[in-house]
Amino acid sequence: MALAGMGVFAEILDGEVFKYYADGEWRSSASGKSVGIVNPTTRQTQYKVQACTQEEVNKVMEAAKVAQKAWARTPLWKRAELLHKAAAILKEHKAPIAECLVKEIAKPAKDAVTEVVRSGDLISYTAEEGVRILGEGKLLVSDSFPGNERNKYCLSSKIPLGVVLAIPPFNYPVNLAVSKIGPALIAGNALVLKPPTQGAVAALHMVHCFHLAGFPKGLISCVTGKGSEIGGDTGIAISKKAGMVPLQMELGGKDACIVLEDADLDLVAANIVKGGFSYSGQRCTAVKVVLIMESVADAVVQKVNAKLAKLKVGPPEDNSDITPVVTESSANFIEGLVMDAKEKGATFCQEYRREGNLIWPLLLDHVRPDMRIAWEEPFGPVLPVIRINSAEEGIHHCNASNFGLQGCIFTKDINKAILISDAMETGTVQINSAPARGPDHFPFQGLKDSGIGSQGITNSINMMTKVKSTVINLPSPSYTMG
Amino acid sequence: MALAGMGVFAEILDGEVFKYYADGEWRSSASGKSVGIVNPTTRQTQYKVQACTQEEVNKVMEAAKVAQKAWARTPLWKRAELLHKAAAILKEHKAPIAECLVKEIAKPAKDAVTEVVRSGDLISYTAEEGVRILGEGKLLVSDSFPGNERNKYCLSSKIPLGVVLAIPPFNYPVNLAVSKIGPALIAGNALVLKPPTQGAVAALHMVHCFHLAGFPKGLISCVTGKGSEIGGDTGIAISKKAGMVPLQMELGGKDACIVLEDADLDLVAANIVKGGFSYSGQRCTAVKVVLIMESVADAVVQKVNAKLAKLKVGPPEDNSDITPVVTESSANFIEGLVMDAKEKGATFCQEYRREGNLIWPLLLDHVRPDMRIAWEEPFGPVLPVIRINSAEEGIHHCNASNFGLQGCIFTKDINKAILISDAMETGTVQINSAPARGPDHFPFQGLKDSGIGSQGITNSINMMTKVKSTVINLPSPSYTMG
Amino acid sequence: MALAGMGVFAEILDGEVFKYYADGEWRSSASGKSVGIVNPTTRQTQYKVQACTQEEVNKVMEAAKVAQKAWARTPLWKRAELLHKAAAILKEHKAPIAECLVKEIAKPAKDAVTEVVRSGDLISYTAEEGVRILGEGKLLVSDSFPGNERNKYCLSSKIPLGVVLAIPPFNYPVNLAVSKIGPALIAGNALVLKPPTQGAVAALHMVHCFHLAGFPKGLISCVTGKGSEIGGDTGIAISKKAGMVPLQMELGGKDACIVLEDADLDLVAANIVKGGFSYSGQRCTAVKVVLIMESVADAVVQKVNAKLAKLKVGPPEDNSDITPVVTESSANFIEGLVMDAKEKGATFCQEYRREGNLIWPLLLDHVRPDMRIAWEEPFGPVLPVIRINSAEEGIHHCNASNFGLQGCIFTKDINKAILISDAMETGTVQINSAPARGPDHFPFQGLKDSGIGSQGITNSINMMTKVKSTVINLPSPSYTMG
Amino acid sequence: MALAGMGVFAEILDGEVFKYYADGEWRSSASGKSVGIVNPTTRQTQYKVQACTQEEVNKVMEAAKVAQKAWARTPLWKRAELLHKAAAILKEHKAPIAECLVKEIAKPAKDAVTEVVRSGDLISYTAEEGVRILGEGKLLVSDSFPGNERNKYCLSSKIPLGVVLAIPPFNYPVNLAVSKIGPALIAGNALVLKPPTQGAVAALHMVHCFHLAGFPKGLISCVTGKGSEIGGDTGIAISKKAGMVPLQMELGGKDACIVLEDADLDLVAANIVKGGFSYSGQRCTAVKVVLIMESVADAVVQKVNAKLAKLKVGPPEDNSDITPVVTESSANFIEGLVMDAKEKGATFCQEYRREGNLIWPLLLDHVRPDMRIAWEEPFGPVLPVIRINSAEEGIHHCNASNFGLQGCIFTKDINKAILISDAMETGTVQINSAPARGPDHFPFQGLKDSGIGSQGITNSINMMTKVKSTVINLPSPSYTMG
Repeated sequence: MALAGMGVFAEILDGEVFKYYADGEWRSSASGKSVGIVNPTTRQTQYKVQACTQEEVNKVMEAAKVAQKAWARTPLWKRAELLHKAAAILKEHKAPIAECLVKEIAKPAKDAVTEVVRSGDLISYTAEEGVRILGEGKLLVSDSFPGNERNKYCLSSKIPLGVVLAIPPFNYPVNLAVSKIGPALIAGNALVLKPPTQGAVAALHMVHCFHLAGFPKGLISCVTGKGSEIGGDTGIAISKKAGMVPLQMELGGKDACIVLEDADLDLVAANIVKGGFSYSGQRCTAVKVVLIMESVADAVVQKVNAKLAKLKVGPPEDNSDITPVVTESSANFIEGLVMDAKEKGATFCQEYRREGNLIWPLLLDHVRPDMRIAWEEPFGPVLPVIRINSAEEGIHHCNASNFGLQGCIFTKDINKAILISDAMETGTVQINSAPARGPDHFPFQGLKDSGIGSQGITNSINMMTKVKSTVINLPSPSYTMG
Repeated sequence: MALAGMGVFAEILDGEVFKYYADGEWRSSASGKSVGIVNPTTRQTQYKVQACTQEEVNKVMEAAKVAQKAWARTPLWKRAELLHKAAAILKEHKAPIAECLVKEIAKPAKDAVTEVVRSGDLISYTAEEGVRILGEGKLLVSDSFPGNERNKYCLSSKIPLGVVLAIPPFNYPVNLAVSKIGPALIAGNALVLKPPTQGAVAALHMVHCFHLAGFPKGLISCVTGKGSEIGGDTGIAISKKAGMVPLQMELGGKDACIVLEDADLDLVAANIVKGGFSYSGQRCTAVKVVLIMESVADAVVQKVNAKLAKLKVGPPEDNSDITPVVTESSANFIEGLVMDAKEKGATFCQEYRREGNLIWPLLLDHVRPDMRIAWEEPFGPVLPVIRINSAEEGIHHCNASNFGLQGCIFTKDINKAILISDAMETGTVQINSAPARGPDHFPFQGLKDSGIGSQGITNSINMMTKVKSTVINLPSPSYTMG
Repeated sequence: MALAGMGVFAEILDGEVFKYYADGEWRSSASGKSVGIVNPTTRQTQYKVQACTQEEVNKVMEAAKVAQKAWARTPLWKRAELLHKAAAILKEHKAPIAECLVKEIAKPAKDAVTEVVRSGDLISYTAEEGVRILGEGKLLVSDSFPGNERNKYCLSSKIPLGVVLAIPPFNYPVNLAVSKIGPALIAGNALVLKPPTQGAVAALHMVHCFHLAGFPKGLISCVTGKGSEIGGDTGIAISKKAGMVPLQMELGGKDACIVLEDADLDLVAANIVKGGFSYSGQRCTAVKVVLIMESVADAVVQKVNAKLAKLKVGPPEDNSDITPVVTESSANFIEGLVMDAKEKGATFCQEYRREGNLIWPLLLDHVRPDMRIAWEEPFGPVLPVIRINSAEEGIHHCNASNFGLQGCIFTKDINKAILISDAMETGTVQINSAPARGPDHFPFQGLKDSGIGSQGITNSINMMTKVKSTVINLPSPSYTMG
Repeated sequence: MALAGMGVFAEILDGEVFKYYADGEWRSSASGKSVGIVNPTTRQTQYKVQACTQEEVNKVMEAAKVAQKAWARTPLWKRAELLHKAAAILKEHKAPIAECLVKEIAKPAKDAVTEVVRSGDLISYTAEEGVRILGEGKLLVSDSFPGNERNKYCLSSKIPLGVVLAIPPFNYPVNLAVSKIGPALIAGNALVLKPPTQGAVAALHMVHCFHLAGFPKGLISCVTGKGSEIGGDTGIAISKKAGMVPLQMELGGKDACIVLEDADLDLVAANIVKGGFSYSGQRCTAVKVVLIMESVADAVVQKVNAKLAKLKVGPPEDNSDITPVVTESSANFIEGLVMDAKEKGATFCQEYRREGNLIWPLLLDHVRPDMRIAWEEPFGPVLPVIRINSAEEGIHHCNASNFGLQGCIFTKDINKAILISDAMETGTVQINSAPARGPDHFPFQGLKDSGIGSQGITNSINMMTKVKSTVINLPSPSYTMG
């Protein structure tokens, strides 16, 4: 039963093409063109979205600048109240939005629902966090610094950046959109969303929930189309002209899983399967290489293989564990890594199997550093195992990567756990669990090529603000007495 | 070679009686009386201090109130500068002060020097910490709370309490004095010190370092004498009248050391000896009961006994490890606990031996909950071992105590370490090390009968302040733009 | 139409006596006795509550201790969820609760509703604030302090106190109860409420909203009766035995309103009337003395008198501005202050008029320091005006008071506003507005006899916690790399 | 008497060319070339510095990467100790360094000494601040977020960025260098300094003070030469390869001074002269446009002119108030702005006068928005006055600028002060004082084209760090009890 574009969402559909959102209303582009979205499972066009023009994008930005000034003068609790309302509406309409995720990015049905619900929780948490971050500044006095009397009181607070542009990736088109929209809005910014092509329709539905919540017109907008046409290099130029701050976090990763001899091997196997194969490995924080002590490698590989054998492979509608990867070119890229490993002598724990975009889960054992898959990110259900002879060897491989998103270490030993965690040059190290972005209030950041700045709800809100200070200069020193 | 009361310290001596410090100068009491301080090693009177009168104490408090108002109007960096100066002078004169500690409280010579040096570092660290704590307040806006526009800006800051009374215990008469004096002064308070009888002369020397640093007169004072005469109940009444805030932290403790089967047993033994017998066990954070898994108990007891056999027992001047306890009544109390344990069947790992105040180190094995020493604090070189059959049993004994200062747990297992630490109801839990107050910037607190509030440099400074806020009410809402 | 004790509240009534709340259920006391609550307007018994026995109180405390341990192990978001539910139920039932406030403490009907609604908002805000305060601790490293390597990681967090006893005052029996209950619960404590006699029935209704929200049994309880019987000195002894932390904030005040020559006189007059006469002056933060520059005094007095003439005086049911004060003895005390001022020559701007507990609003001009009303707190609709000749004179009078709750200063001049605010020794100074406790997230504290500690939502939560730290000791130094 | 390059500084000189600093030693470039530094006063070559090669720069960067890893493992207190030592050495050698500032950038002699001393204070303050910022991380628990138990403990801390490149501007070549060096080093980074050409020799002397303090070799380096040769676009590419984070803050500004009718006009005039003409207007936070209410404009212009007439104009060695601007091209640019204003009808309060790089102070009245000087930054002793008829007009002009560094507002009225400050879109607004960067612990930031990020000691240290977190995953939920 089709739900997307139905009911309250009928408004966002123009014939068979989904509208874009500007100035508080749903519009068809003057371009008269649309962009098709291919369902990864059927490899047929599933949905169509507007191909917005540059002029339409420019208008959206101008409207955002105007709307932002008024929004920045809205009481914090009112901003929060609207976000809570949007969160409730989003959770209420989880079904049609999850349907889009299934059709656009082949996310398993249950996971798709989870993404929407978790997004609602994230918005509410963000609202309350933001009330506190924006509502509290610092009061500094001048006499801390040598040579000064206390005749200056400095009041510093956090204020909005202005207009924020969010360009989330395809794998969490709802969650990684609201993780920017929520912080941007509570902090007093306007927000322009350019969703990924795969996932655009889910994003449009999500934006409609904000529309229904009653945010001021122009404050939030969502433009669709080919990047090259609606903006591209020119678009970035325009957005700079508009004084807009573009925010895009490409958090590539090659998260290593270091397994020591004293680890709980069942825990390890469970985390390798969950960490490496959930959503077919299409997660920035997926386990992307296993670095395991030789002495326990055979046992763990065996346990992992047993679990892989039980995974359900097929279409997302059936709640399969492994579903088609997002595009044919992705599948081809993955296959390239697999073939390279084959040529260079990796051990295939399973037969390599592919149908269309669907790739069966594959563990590659005895991978060595000269294979591409030792360093590159397949973003698919294919996981290399490298056998090591010391923890140092594992740390060295982890740190030799250009990426530095997350890593994990499995050991029962408290000293090794801390010392190795300190030595791994990644934004986060998980001790005795697979890498994970959540819970969403934890800081989340990548080092090296894995990104700049730290996310997580608190840090994301801070990144959506800048500092302003007011200094009261007194004619004579004054010290607060009591 | 005698150093105390010599050189720059000659000024603090009136014949053979040390003066008290009031209104920026060293004075003899109008009482004409003195109080003798008995050397725990020789059991002879070593020093004499003034027996101040109530009237003298009252005057000190009045002067403190006046001096405090001006000091609270002194720039933070100037306050810090004076504290740095006092710290440098203190460290410069470590020798005579350490000598007092040796003679007054039988602290081993090296430890005595360490106490003075560490006290200087503490003062400097406190000065810089305080500049930051006092120099930064909060700016709050009204529109965080439902129903409010942003028409109120609240500026809240930390201000001094007023006059602070410090009554440190005998075992660290210098360090536990400056850990209150430093925070009190940098926060803008005046400080009245009533040192313990044993340790009073060390404290007077320390106070003279502050005098030499040039603090304003009346801001710091130090009164000596019998508690009952200089204040007692009446004194507390007076101090309340004076609006003074008395601060005394009696941090008794019965710190448990839980040892699991997978622990590093050499590490355990080393920590039991250091934790239980340093300064003859006269430390609030000494290990006061060992709760050890039966399966490793014999091995650990054997290792501990081997180490105890090597401890040097004798006078503090010789840098003995075990020196006489502070008073004869203390020695008697310890003996009482030992005899009770003997009667009830504890195993004596060493022969009980005492000469005067000097008690030889003693490990009591197979102690059971019906013995007093299982629960009471000997404050001497006597340590009970209770054998347990599960971690839960150890936690239960730890939590059944009225005290809740620190505890420690020895295990290599990260999960057990955290879970047991969370379950132990003490202010601090040390994982794989003996309890310890330092480093001095760590929070330090006791639960239950072990104290109220949290110390450590940062927390101590905060405890020396109160909050004051100023609310600017605007005629119309105003939001900070940028 | 009577609402109290009806509908969902029928459960809390036993015949004509309201039950007390223990172990998750509503009970009648074994004493078989009740305490009557006199309606200040009718001076007749309005309601009856249980006269609990000491044994019942003791049982409540024991149950609270047990319930607290489980509650402290409940996820923060679940604690918050229950509080949000209680807040919603409370706001839903604002009518019957407001009715109690009208009948028990003669609060004007509209204000009574406002108190309940504001209390709901406070609970929700507290829940979210507490999630953040309890969910974030500190990670400290050892190498900050001289001489240390980084081999110790200290994890400190805030943990619950245990069982908290709340004894709110009569004037805001709902709001000043939830301002303790909310912080206590979100922080993981159990809560025992002893409401004031006047206001007890409103409090019982409020507690029922928490019951309906589904909190674990024993976690919250509410005992009623005469203080001397249910506890008194013995009770305190018991509560100490129980390891309970009693928290009662008596925030008396004599808030001064300093008016300078350049002030906006209409703003001043409006704030004097609102600040001095709202709820008939029965507010801890009421303006309790006006200190006004001679040159503008006549004009302001005239403006105030014009406004006082328009105030509606009568029963709370009619939304009168001035209603009967809470008890006859209060009315007598106020009359005593008025008569003293009369004898000593104060100018009566209105005729003194009293009927039963109802006292007509009265401004006393030309009050001088020898009159009791210059220093004492009438807690009624009677306000003294002292004429001053300099700001310093005003500051001096303000600071000579034993109280130090709030104060306010009216001036347009930014330098005077800050300098005078800094000089006034009160917990808060309001610039250009009357003293006020809210918004509820602002810090709220009294100096001197006006209280210890700082309230306001954030500070109250902190006061409901203590610090615990865990130190991980490593075998070798480890520095976090990235 | 020449001091630069003498005494302890002889080591940094190779014949008549100053060496560059790499790998802990002073070196001559393999290029065999030098770059001359022209004295702005004499317009003759004063000093020569090495023209480093790209290869030398690359080696410096490689050495920095290696040195940084070891430095990041150095205890915080040791890092601070070395910085304190460098600060002391710098202040000790203020004379020769100030001499360089006089000769290289024509800074008045007294101001040059002040810059060096203030830099020493800044380093020390930074060291202590950094110990605290780097020494304290956060401990987060998982159960704050809906749906989670407390089975994850997240330890997040601040860690160094790696290698930091500092490129300070000419006007404070010592102070704006150490304001980056200090934060970079205490945070555990390595630092490569590329000083401005004018000021390079002062910077080399300053770097030698760090050398003398004994920092590890390779940790700090200083390369000189033409930007285009030592790096340019290629250099940036290399530095990116090297994983280096370049940090350059170009804080241009057009700081407005809004003067209302009720302002203290003497205070205004004094601040306009100090704010607009100190160091000949070559300060990013100089007052660069006066926006004054018509009714008080004549009076203020008259007062300013009277003060300008008393300024001493001449060479920096004589402590002149107005000295030659830094280069001939700067002087030409200033002259261009002046001539444009002349053509368009601005009123010249003084005759325009220039000799070489020396320009006499000039106030331009009746400036209008069509003149370039209304918007452009002269960076010289030339100040435009625009007359306004309302505060709104002033705010509008301020906000229409592309710059948003600081601004100031002169008024006695507390409401106007706050409301206008909130409305001015600049990083800082000074109430009743000229814009200023200091005191150095205050936040300092520009909006719009005036910069990204916030400086000031605390913020600068934070900008030199990134976040890393370690998550301890427990097998079962654990709540900290106590």
